[in-house]
Amino acid sequence: MNQALEGLKVIDLSRVLAGPYCTMVLGDMGANVIKIERYPFGDDSRSMGPFQGEESYSFAMANRNKRSICLNIKKRDGLDILLKLVEDADVFIENFRPGVASKLGIDFDTLKAINPGLIYCSISGYGQTGPYKDKGGYDIMAQGLSGIMSMTGEIGGAPVKSGFAVNDIAAGVTAIYSILAAYIYKLRTQKGQYIDLALVDAGLAWTVWESAAYFGAGEVSVPNGSAHRVSAPYQGFQTKDGHILIGAANEKLWKLFCEKVVERPDWLEDPRFLTNRDRISHREELEQVIQEVIGLKESSYWLPRLELAGVPAGPISRYNETLENEHVLSREMVINYDHPVFGPLKSLGFPTKFSETPERLNRPAPTLGQHSSEILLEHGWNEREINSLRDQKII
Amino acid sequence: MNQALEGLKVIDLSRVLAGPYCTMVLGDMGANVIKIERYPFGDDSRSMGPFQGEESYSFAMANRNKRSICLNIKKRDGLDILLKLVEDADVFIENFRPGVASKLGIDFDTLKAINPGLIYCSISGYGQTGPYKDKGGYDIMAQGLSGIMSMTGEIGGAPVKSGFAVNDIAAGVTAIYSILAAYIYKLRTQKGQYIDLALVDAGLAWTVWESAAYFGAGEVSVPNGSAHRVSAPYQGFQTKDGHILIGAANEKLWKLFCEKVVERPDWLEDPRFLTNRDRISHREELEQVIQEVIGLKESSYWLPRLELAGVPAGPISRYNETLENEHVLSREMVINYDHPVFGPLKSLGFPTKFSETPERLNRPAPTLGQHSSEILLEHGWNEREINSLRDQKII
Repeated sequence: MNQALEGLKVIDLSRVLAGPYCTMVLGDMGANVIKIERYPFGDDSRSMGPFQGEESYSFAMANRNKRSICLNIKKRDGLDILLKLVEDADVFIENFRPGVASKLGIDFDTLKAINPGLIYCSISGYGQTGPYKDKGGYDIMAQGLSGIMSMTGEIGGAPVKSGFAVNDIAAGVTAIYSILAAYIYKLRTQKGQYIDLALVDAGLAWTVWESAAYFGAGEVSVPNGSAHRVSAPYQGFQTKDGHILIGAANEKLWKLFCEKVVERPDWLEDPRFLTNRDRISHREELEQVIQEVIGLKESSYWLPRLELAGVPAGPISRYNETLENEHVLSREMVINYDHPVFGPLKSLGFPTKFSETPERLNRPAPTLGQHSSEILLEHGWNEREINSLRDQKII
Repeated sequence: MNQALEGLKVIDLSRVLAGPYCTMVLGDMGANVIKIERYPFGDDSRSMGPFQGEESYSFAMANRNKRSICLNIKKRDGLDILLKLVEDADVFIENFRPGVASKLGIDFDTLKAINPGLIYCSISGYGQTGPYKDKGGYDIMAQGLSGIMSMTGEIGGAPVKSGFAVNDIAAGVTAIYSILAAYIYKLRTQKGQYIDLALVDAGLAWTVWESAAYFGAGEVSVPNGSAHRVSAPYQGFQTKDGHILIGAANEKLWKLFCEKVVERPDWLEDPRFLTNRDRISHREELEQVIQEVIGLKESSYWLPRLELAGVPAGPISRYNETLENEHVLSREMVINYDHPVFGPLKSLGFPTKFSETPERLNRPAPTLGQHSSEILLEHGWNEREINSLRDQKII
């Protein structure tokens, strides 16, 4: 089967997560991704555990479907190699702090002169403009400034992080679609362009309902535990052995819940709980009485009972349960393959199920500089020259 | 200036958030998005507050850059209109429960017969396949099953939701890039295809580091408050008037923090805090001693001090602070425009800064059926026929 992005050539100087996530997905869809790694240590995420020997699982999970060349671009000959690779590329991506690409001689204007059709994507914490542009911006700082952290946590509690690196991923995923849109424009006009993305902007753009509450009514979203803001009960409860979500969010479902699930028809007469509005105003008491009952039995008792009664419900899975869940597995969200260092390796699967151009594992994440020779041979260097570049510590 | 997706025609039957977010961004990039709203009430999010009169801010925030036709596709003539609109469309998107599109006569096979180049994207809670496919799946259930909720919250506390609808957005954003990749394939081959997306899969695919910890070392990610998993101190602290993040994550930064920021050089001698490893093992005590000092002064005292010392730091902004922050405003992440019902309206800005094909507001979110006549006129109906369709309650 074909892949959607066959023929798209990507030169990737990005490190750690936002850029690498973007280029991994481009690779999953068939793009030719050449990862340029800094000589001699490579991507910073190669030093992030867990490890097997010297090889990092974190690196492996964010870098499948790429080839690696380890290149010293601070030497003129190394920089020339990079410029040669860029000549016929469609996409160039970097996530240095603003200004660094310019110092390295690989800013947009320089590369555009070599390749006018180039799509050049920069990802940084705060973007290329604005008063904070020179600050170092990591995911956690972006979660803080974008307001996402302040609306996550226990009711009345301190702000907490989203469980995964949400602003890093936001910038990476926004990069994927922005690059593809720019590529569509390039196919039509032969023109390249510059794309400036910030971790803060990318996460902030996703707070759609929260922006409606604020711009429409001045409401500032705050931590709300596991609960829905305007329906109750619609939240997590602790069972005897885990957590489940129960969404008895309208009058009909509340009746079913009381009668069929917990067998407490008396709650239907309780003046504190008569309507959704009453239940919202007595949220704490509601939560407490339900918690007392739900805590008496295991999740495996409650979930089928809720389903039978027709009350929306589901597990709050621990991550190991997620990755072993029958539905998750049937969706092929865990894939198995052989990695040259790790041997048999599991990895997350592909979220898009394309009928004609399936994403697939074309190659496992590369070891550092695994494809240096191969890539240079493709671009016109010969074996002798490549050996000399090695001797000079350029590759 | 041109836009990247000019000429891309999108027929959008999706409701609420995942699909509408996708088509809004396609519209932001210049696509011609025709939103088909269910007769007579329209998108469910039109009934979500806050309101001004009858008009929903929530709807407005997720539906700019679309035109609306209100259409009764349960009547044959209404269905025929939809089929006519699809004839020359590039993209069709729906987020019914699996099976519903088929019952409505608008499944992929039917539409493909009319338009072989159609890219048909379905978004659902659990996807079109697998044991859970027929369950109702909302964002919160998907956060629960994908494991994201179980890794978010206070240390040792109950799982909490991410502050925004992360799995809804994940599916919507995955839809954007998947549709654009399929469109690139279509430009090359004239072939359309089917895309099956699930809220659960889309969110799960983003847990990159967490998958590395699990597949590599069997570690199950659990709630970790605002703290970094492997560095300390790197987390939120409460000041006298808010919360800030402090990332003194290596020995050099820890020294700067103790000497220049809090003026407690004695901590450098404390055997509990000598190395990052020590600080991680005595995390609670570390947090407590730092909290005691940080809590004595306002954020506006600490942040410049941290910056001057060169210790990474930043605010945990409340959402109102985010939307008034000088940097966020300088990045044009809040835009102002006139809406026919609301009057002057603020909205989140565009996360991608394209140099050649900027995203822009071409039109505010439509009122229900605002463009029914205009769209029908474009597709060959005349005024008399349109009036008759109104009389028959088809539009």
